[in-house]
Order: sequence, then structure tokens, then C-alpha cells
Amino acid sequence: MKKYIGVDLGGTNVRCAIVDEAGNVLADVSSESYGQQGPQKVLDNIYQLIRQLPDWQSCQGIGIGVPGPCNQMSGSMTLSTNLPGFKDFPFVETVEKELGLKTFIDNDANVAGLAEAVVGAGKGLAVVYYVTISTGIGGGLVVNGQCVSGKHGFTGEIANIIIDRNREKVNYLAVGAVENEASGPSIARKGQKALNDETITTKKVFELAEAGNEKATEVLNGVIRDLAQLFATLAAVVDPDMFVLGGGVMKSEDYIMPRLKEEFNKITHEALHDTPFVRAKLKEPGVIGAAMLPKSHGL
Amino acid sequence: MKKYIGVDLGGTNVRCAIVDEAGNVLADVSSESYGQQGPQKVLDNIYQLIRQLPDWQSCQGIGIGVPGPCNQMSGSMTLSTNLPGFKDFPFVETVEKELGLKTFIDNDANVAGLAEAVVGAGKGLAVVYYVTISTGIGGGLVVNGQCVSGKHGFTGEIANIIIDRNREKVNYLAVGAVENEASGPSIARKGQKALNDETITTKKVFELAEAGNEKATEVLNGVIRDLAQLFATLAAVVDPDMFVLGGGVMKSEDYIMPRLKEEFNKITHEALHDTPFVRAKLKEPGVIGAAMLPKSHGL
Repeated sequence: MKKYIGVDLGGTNVRCAIVDEAGNVLADVSSESYGQQGPQKVLDNIYQLIRQLPDWQSCQGIGIGVPGPCNQMSGSMTLSTNLPGFKDFPFVETVEKELGLKTFIDNDANVAGLAEAVVGAGKGLAVVYYVTISTGIGGGLVVNGQCVSGKHGFTGEIANIIIDRNREKVNYLAVGAVENEASGPSIARKGQKALNDETITTKKVFELAEAGNEKATEVLNGVIRDLAQLFATLAAVVDPDMFVLGGGVMKSEDYIMPRLKEEFNKITHEALHDTPFVRAKLKEPGVIGAAMLPKSHGL
Repeated sequence: MKKYIGVDLGGTNVRCAIVDEAGNVLADVSSESYGQQGPQKVLDNIYQLIRQLPDWQSCQGIGIGVPGPCNQMSGSMTLSTNLPGFKDFPFVETVEKELGLKTFIDNDANVAGLAEAVVGAGKGLAVVYYVTISTGIGGGLVVNGQCVSGKHGFTGEIANIIIDRNREKVNYLAVGAVENEASGPSIARKGQKALNDETITTKKVFELAEAGNEKATEVLNGVIRDLAQLFATLAAVVDPDMFVLGGGVMKSEDYIMPRLKEEFNKITHEALHDTPFVRAKLKEPGVIGAAMLPKSHGL
């Protein structure tokens, strides 16, 4: 069975693993990523980690998931807020030169979507749209087992999709951007306001709603209505075979899923109502999805 | 050079053509479609038309563009408002049995997008999103020379994307659906209201705005702002290599394009600002795109 090296590179930590083509992690190592110290330090550390992996040279290729959009043509990051110095740095070329294996990079959300589409919840489906709802909201589109990252790697950069332009200005994102209306922190923010209590957490809003608290329920009704509009929009743009939902907010899957589906159905054509909404299945989509990058390119 | 049969089937007319792989129409015939008389009559007419085409049996396959979303698995239409009796009718199977050539169907907007991506404005690009702004608003996604029609063929059914939920209820579409805010008829509707004149047409609104009329300019500013939000949303979901814009409203290309680009840039990340917005190039995208369907499936 073919094997691949997956690298899940974040601003704080990095993990390198050998993954087989079925998505099993055969070996892995991790460390801090030295993300603030620039490409040379970050890459030297990655090389060292990979060389600790057993028989790493026999792998078909290397895939690297990074925290930001990537340009597939140049093999570099388009933006690198959490990895200073990596914007337009020749990432792929540099790694290939050092390790002698064909290398690919892509955004962490795209890579997580790839993992779910190839060996996870959407295994074998033609069109999968992955959405992660966490501190931020991001996503990825996988068609026929390949990330469709787009011209600038911005496919799935859905945080700034405007859900309702008549909301309050929260931060640098557009007024009414979905990330400010339905992410984890925005649920907490809205709960704090509705309940006039600054200690309210995202988790607490769900707990209160489940216990019948009207104000918390109202907050979540609004959030879920906003999410439904996001998914209705996604369905109109790409009509996937499955939506795969990941991220911390999905810990409240039991609360969210039936209500989200109900709201989605209210604002979409009935032909779309059998679109499956499924929670992400993989525990380590980052490193597995990264490893699937070379596989998705035919290696 | 390989040749294909393209069929552009509408509710009123039908056109059949032999098209070579470069997109040249070599021969064509057309007639009314008998769209209200059910599948038997519509298909018998198509068979007769195709048999009039010179040496039609030597074509690689048949592609049919139809006015509604299609299920690629079953080879049938999911919805067929303008072709009664075709919903769930085994379209592909029936044609293949009669004519003995491999057959494919897809929505007319998807097919137009395919034509533009393969031999038109977006020739050779990896990811093309086609948007037609006319009586309605529709679109199509083409990735690596193939329509990504989606689970229910609803990819590109973007008419109902909600741009601003605080608008007036116009018809069966959602409040604030882009088709009710930025299609040709909605430009006329808004112009009539702003100018208090029921005779105002879409074309007249553009003429008045070009002549400096403030109310008409205001109407178009709003419409273009709404369209910009649609394109910003599309870019976040799929980040195409090019937007190709077709449809009657694009006759006002000179007025729309620079303003649309400016508004798009205001609400998107600067990395996206070089995304090309290009007017559709082909005069007959329907029949050419239909003919490209078998080619896009490797024939």
C-alpha cells in the first residue's frame, strides 16, 4: 500500500506523519512550529521531524497543510498572517530541493475537506463541501478527490460571506459577515449581550438553550438561521453530494443539526432537501488531509 | 478532428448542430421544440433533426442542453418547468437507445459555461464560473473542462441567493434573492418605481444613467452593489480563474463592468482583485456547449 508524508503546520505547532492511502497514520512526530521565526527555522525543524519518520524516503510524496490560502501554480502561500515571512515564499520548491520528494501545499481547511472527502465522512463522493465552524468559519471544496483551491487559494474562505448587511460592525470583516454572526465567539458575544452577562461562553449558550432558556434559544435560532443561509448559498453555488461540518461548534451537533436542516429546507428548493449534512469523522483531518495531497495529484 | 452533436433544447425552439472539438459549428438545423407536447413528440422531432445532419453517425457523441437542472446519475431532468413531462424522464437512456450514440444532458447555463470554459472567453482555465444576467440569473461551474453540476444539478442555480434579507417580497423567490434585485426585469421594476414611470425599460434605465439622471444612477448603483456581493460570495465559495458574464443585461457591459469591479474590490480581500471579469465571447454557447458535453466526458 502506498504511503505519503503529511505535515500539519500551524502557527504554534507542527505535526509530521506517514499516512497510508487508506488514511491510517502509521507513524508521527510533532513539535512546536517556530512559526514566528521565519521560513528557514520553520523548515529546518520540519526537515528534522520528517527525517525521524521510519523509511520516509519510500513515501510517494509530501503534502503540507498551512494556515492560509495558497497559490498552486507557484507553490507558495498567498497570505500568511500566522506564519510571518511565508507570503510568496517558494515553499514547495524549497522542500522538494531539500528532501527530493514531490511536494504539495494547501490551506488547512481545504486539506481537512480533502481528508473527509477521500477517507472520511464523504468517502468516495464526487463533490464534497467541508465547512468548519470554530473560532473562525472556513471551508473547502473537493471535486473528484481533488481540492479545488482556486486561482488564489481562496476557495472556502467563506468567513466574509455577507449574510445580512444590516448588522452591527464587529471588526475588519464586512458588516454581517457570517464569521461574525455564527462562529463560536460570535455565539458567546450574542449570548453575553442577550443575557447581560459577560461570563457567558459559547458552550453555556447551548446549555441554557437546552435547559429551555428563552433568550439563549433566541440567540441560537438566529445563529442557526444565519448558518442555514450560508449553506443554502453554498448549495446554490456548487450543490455538493454532502456537506461535511467540522470545528468546535459542532460539539453541539445534536442541538444544531436538526434545526439547521429545518431552516435550510425552509429557504431552499425541495429538490435539495436530501442533501446530507454530516459531522466530520476524522480525528486528525489536518495531517491525514495533508498526506492525501500527493495522492490527489495521482502519486 | 473529432465532431460532436449538440442539441440546444428550449421550451419553444430546438437547435441541433454538428460541432468540431474546436467549437466550430459545421452544420445545423432548427425548429420549434414542441415543448408543451411531452417527451415523445419533443424527442421524435429531435431525432428527425439530427438525422438531417450530414454524416451524423460519425460523431463521437451527443450533448443536450435543457432548460432545468439535471441528475447526472440518472440522466434525467430534476425539474422541467418549461418542458412538461420531462421531470425524471429517462432522457439519456431513451436517446441512446434510438440513435446509438453516447449521450449526455445538462442544464443550459452549465452548458453555456462549459462552452465558454472550453472554447470561449475562459478557454483552457482550470476553474471558470459563468454567470448569466438576463430575465433570470443563473450560472455554471466548470472545473478542468467539466461541468460540476452537483448532486441535483443545482450548481449555478444562484437566482435565489439572498443578497439582502431586508427587501420587499417580490414573488416566490426568497426576500432579497439576487434574481429579484439585479436581473433585467428587476432593473426595470426599480427604474419604474424610482422615476415613477411605468414605461421605463431596463435599457432605458442604463440610457438615463449614462445621460446623468440621478435616480437612474442610484438604481444602478444599488443593482451593481448587489451583483458585486453575489460575485464576492462566488469568489469565496470557489475562487475561479475567471468570471464569465453572459445574458442580455451584459449588453450594458461598458456601464456595468468597471463599476462592478470597483464594488467587488471594496468588499473582497485585495488578493482577489486580479480576478478577471470577462464578457461571454460565444454567440451560440447553447449548442456549442451541449456539443462539448461528450468531449468533456473523454469522448
